[in-house]
Order: sequence, then structure tokens, then C-alpha cells
Amino acid sequence: MAEREGVNLPMTSTVDREPMRRALRAALRGPAADPNPRVGAVVLDAAGEVVGEGHHAGAGTPHAEVVALAQAGERARGGTAYVTLEPCSHTGRTPPCTRALLDAGVAAVVYAVSDPSAEAGGGAQVLRGHGVRVSEGAAAVGAELAQEAEQLVAAFSFAVRHGRPRVVWKMATTLDGRIAAADGSSAWITSPEARADAQQLRAASGAVMVGTGTALADDPSLTARHDDGTLRERQPLRVVVGHRDLPQGARLLDGQAETLRLPTHDPAEALSALHARQVRQVLLEGGATLAAACWRAGLIDEVVSYLAPALLGAGPAAVGDLGITTIDGIARLEVTDLRRVGPDIRFTARPVGTQKEI
Amino acid sequence: MAEREGVNLPMTSTVDREPMRRALRAALRGPAADPNPRVGAVVLDAAGEVVGEGHHAGAGTPHAEVVALAQAGERARGGTAYVTLEPCSHTGRTPPCTRALLDAGVAAVVYAVSDPSAEAGGGAQVLRGHGVRVSEGAAAVGAELAQEAEQLVAAFSFAVRHGRPRVVWKMATTLDGRIAAADGSSAWITSPEARADAQQLRAASGAVMVGTGTALADDPSLTARHDDGTLRERQPLRVVVGHRDLPQGARLLDGQAETLRLPTHDPAEALSALHARQVRQVLLEGGATLAAACWRAGLIDEVVSYLAPALLGAGPAAVGDLGITTIDGIARLEVTDLRRVGPDIRFTARPVGTQKEI
Repeated sequence: MAEREGVNLPMTSTVDREPMRRALRAALRGPAADPNPRVGAVVLDAAGEVVGEGHHAGAGTPHAEVVALAQAGERARGGTAYVTLEPCSHTGRTPPCTRALLDAGVAAVVYAVSDPSAEAGGGAQVLRGHGVRVSEGAAAVGAELAQEAEQLVAAFSFAVRHGRPRVVWKMATTLDGRIAAADGSSAWITSPEARADAQQLRAASGAVMVGTGTALADDPSLTARHDDGTLRERQPLRVVVGHRDLPQGARLLDGQAETLRLPTHDPAEALSALHARQVRQVLLEGGATLAAACWRAGLIDEVVSYLAPALLGAGPAAVGDLGITTIDGIARLEVTDLRRVGPDIRFTARPVGTQKEI
Repeated sequence: MAEREGVNLPMTSTVDREPMRRALRAALRGPAADPNPRVGAVVLDAAGEVVGEGHHAGAGTPHAEVVALAQAGERARGGTAYVTLEPCSHTGRTPPCTRALLDAGVAAVVYAVSDPSAEAGGGAQVLRGHGVRVSEGAAAVGAELAQEAEQLVAAFSFAVRHGRPRVVWKMATTLDGRIAAADGSSAWITSPEARADAQQLRAASGAVMVGTGTALADDPSLTARHDDGTLRERQPLRVVVGHRDLPQGARLLDGQAETLRLPTHDPAEALSALHARQVRQVLLEGGATLAAACWRAGLIDEVVSYLAPALLGAGPAAVGDLGITTIDGIARLEVTDLRRVGPDIRFTARPVGTQKEI
């Protein structure tokens, strides 16, 4: 690094990518579903040696830069901080990271993606105003790492921009579109592999949402579990939308995770309540009526469909009345990912056209 | 080749694969849907030069070996014939190919797949009995070419073994399993790319089958067309199963292709009638009642499903009552191929468990 001091070029060489790669790996140690995005930081000293590394462990805990700087101590002075997300310049639950970086005396900061939060934005400007060299985005770290960093903040960015959590609708159907047999039984249509995959979706979501119909018919637990069946440390908020009461003894009332009742039929109202609780992503797990209401309101952002190669011939369908009567009204999506999960097929799709803000 | 005369080893060197590859390419020039399988042949002279090539152009025309030998003439003497399928030893509409090979004086015959037809089998034995060196199957041509050759005779072999045509069920649904909107309109759920792909299925089938319900509701033409919309030279037999009459002016009565009425509700009876007409593969294109009847009778061998990333929320489903009331009765399939076709998803699946012979 010392050799570069005099050369005031953006740091685009491949040499600069390794610390960012390391910062991205550190970020992944943070919780996937949290009010705050996952962030990682790596601090190099003036000679280019790694002297600190940190990640954000969730809302209320120190930011990644602060952790990495604390580890570096005095060795950060004259060095470079690599952060996956633009350092914040605001005082939230913790003091601003720009302050910590300036106090530590770093000469340069490299970050991969800008802070999408308006109230926290401007970190780069603050740092530059104090003479710190700042490099940012794909130009500094390459398109691939910048994209990885974007993904880490995607749900957070979405929520900030739209004023509501991102809604991912999980479907699990037979190839004739059934989610249960004629008698309502549905355990199991998809394979253990597909169900394990779906547990990842739960773990990556701040909340899991169902309608009262599904809650009453299936008595789901909606907890996030490891492959061995044990509960994960962090559980998504369990959300039941609708007016009907849950019976005593319902699994959703078992205390294994928090359960929120939202006595409304308006999905926008439900999402507002979740946004107020800083939920960034909601996994919609059914049923057909709630899914249809969300779709009609333009409040579904992604569909993850597990398709079991199986037939039932009769039984309830995944989605209720969408108000579509003729083929011209068909609702189109775009497939963004397609893969096999065990014996099943999984695809991800996005509605064509912009979904609504609240 | 002359050098090898004295060395009586099976011809497994890669040198021997090129003529078989060429024979396979020749075979593909034959009609995909014909009572007879597609066969290709290449004849080398004693020095290993290609002196003849031919393919079978359909029932009633000369076999591939005969075409290739005719082209080779006297140069076939002492040479080697490469044939994708074991030469026949029976007199059908044409004299046996073993006779033609012996008359031509070839020293060796290499073929990729045995003749599955009992009445025609035994060609290899006849040739060996006359002193011809015979090499066969994967040991002679490698697993890859042997498999390609198998595929060329797959539908024929199936029909010979099972006494009925192979039944391929084509579905085209939304991701919520609908084949039409609530008002019955269904043009178009899938993309032009998917529909063009489905035309290949029609062209590869000796017959296309629907129930009277679909014939009356959709007035389909069921012709096989090129991408530009023009009719293909060969048309599958159009088959309508059921008792109801078609109206005057129905597209199925337009004379663009032959249409067969089968006034029955028994799929096995329908398939027997098609087997008697030497149909080797039937493409089942609907509707839900006929598909369900075929499924219940164990008479569906493959499902090709085109899945449009779209929702309808209401409307008819792809398959009718299968007699399945609870999830334990779910009918399972196995996915054998998965791909994207334009914006749509296409997968191929086989029922788990053996389908019935008649």
C-alpha cells in the first residue's frame, strides 16, 4: 500500500479485491434475517497487512467497521478499511462509523455498495471531507464482488425504498397445481430435500406469514429448523393474518417463536405493521386466499415454487380467485432461477411489472 | 481395413466409430414418426473408404442397408457395412437385408442396437452362419453411439414389447396448474417458443389424441406445422376418443390430415386400435377426462409439461379425477429432463412404476 500513496488512482487492481472478498465472507457470519443488513469489514495497516476483521451481528450490536477497527487498534492508522457497505454517518443505536474510521486514522476506505438508507447516507462524503481517500462500487472492487455485496443488502434496500418488507411467496404444488389432496391432507407433497431448502427461506426471512385458514387447517409450526429437525437459534416472527381465533394448543401458540396476530384482511395493512417492526422480508406460506389478496394488491415480489413431479387430480389449488376471467387477463411472471432440488423442481419468478409501494 | 483381416478382434477402436456416427446422421434423415424405426447405413470398401450411405425413408421403402449397398455396388465386396440397427432376416414388405448383405459380399457388419422385433430378429446369427464377421452394440461402437441408436428405435421397441403405442402426455399449464381461464379461453398460456417445441413432439408422433370434450371446446386443428406456420409434409393421425359427434366445420374434419374417430371411453381399446394401425407413439393433448382415464389405466408412459410462469387463479385443471382422495394416494413421477424453453419451463417425467401392457 505504501508504494501507492503517491499515486492517486482509484484502486481497481485485483490486489484490492482479496480484502473485499474476505469482508464479504465475514459479512455472511451475520444473521440473514435482521432489521439491519449483513456487513463485513477488513482493516489493512499502512503496509497492506490484515490487522482487523469484523462483521455486524445484528441490530443493537456494533457495526462491522467498529469491530474490525477495535481489533486493529493503533495499527489502523494510515491503513485502509474495506467495508462491504458504505460506512454510516448517523447516530442510531450506535455512534456513526465515519467517526470511528476518522478516529482510527485510516487513510483510505473501500466499500462495495452505497448505503440505501437515506437517513444513514452520506458516509463517503463525510470521509472525503476529512481527507480520507474513498473508493466505491464495481469500479473499485469489480462487478462480481459489488453484486455479492448488493445481495447482502437487497431486502434492506427494498424495504427502505418501498416502505414495506419484501414479500416472497413460497408455493409447493403437484404438477397439476394442487397443494393438498381432496381431503385436505398435504404432508408431504414435496421431498425432504425441498423442505430443507424451504427452511433456508424461512431462516432468511424476518417473518413467516399465513392466513387464518391455513393456520386452522394445517396447524403449522412455521419455525425455522436445521436439517436435523432442531430449532434454529433465530426464529422468524410468525404472523397470522385474519380475524378468526386460533384454538388452544395450536402450534403457532407453542412459544417456540414469537407469533403476531394481525386481525385484518388487508395485506397492505399487515405489511405496514411488519415494516414498523423492521421486518425486511416476509415469507408468505399460504393459503390460497391470502396469496390471492397479496397478488391482487400488487404486493408479491418473488415467487419460489417447489414443484413435485406428482399428480393428485383433485384438491385445493395454490392460489384463490385473482379476478381473472379470461386468458387475456393472465398474470405473467418471469423465471429468474430454475433448478432441481432432490426429486423436485424449484423455480424462482418475479411478477412482470412493478409491485406496489404502500 | 485390409490390415485387420487377420486379426480377429472385435472392432472397438475409435476408428470404427466415425462410420457409425455417419450412419446415425443418415438415419435422422428418415421420418421421425413412422411404423418403422429410423435406420442409417454406411458401407466401406475393403480399403476402408466410404462407398455407400443410405437411410430408411419409411414403411414400404427400401431398408437403409439396401440403399447403401446399391450405392456401393461391387465396391462393397470384402468391405464392411455399418448399420444403426441389426439387419433384418425376414421378408416383410421388402426382402431381408441379410440376403442383400450376403449377395453384396461384405466381409463384416457392425451394428449399434439389436432388432427388438421378434419376427425380424436373428439377422446377426444368419450373417455369422455365412462367415460374415459381426460386431454389435456398445462393445463395438461405444456407449454413446449405442445409446443414440437405441433412441432411434425407442418408440418402435416399446410398441413391439408392450403391444401398444407409447403414450406421451403433453401438458401446458400455468404455475397454479390451470390449462385455461375461468371462461375456458386458453390461447395462449405458453410462449411461441414452447408451442414450437410442442410441434416437434407432434411431428415425432404417429398420432395425436384428444377427447371429444377438448375437440368440441377448443376446435383444435392438431396438425404438425413448421415454425413459419406451414403444414409439415407428414402429419400425425388425428385421433378423437369419445362418443360425441364433431360439428360440421370442425377443424379436425378439414382434411389437412387424416382424422380417426374412436367411439370408446376405454383408453386401452383406443390404443389397441392405434397399434393395429402401426402407430408407435401417441401424443395425448387433452383433455382432463381422457388424461385421467389414461392415467388410471396405467397407460401414460411419459409426461412432457410446459409450465408458463403465470397465474390464472381459476379455470380448468390439466387432469381430472384420478380417484385419489388423500395424500397417501398421490401419484408420483420421476423428472428425466428439465429445461427452459423461451420464458417457459419444460420438464419431462415418467410415472414411477411400470405402466401397463394391453
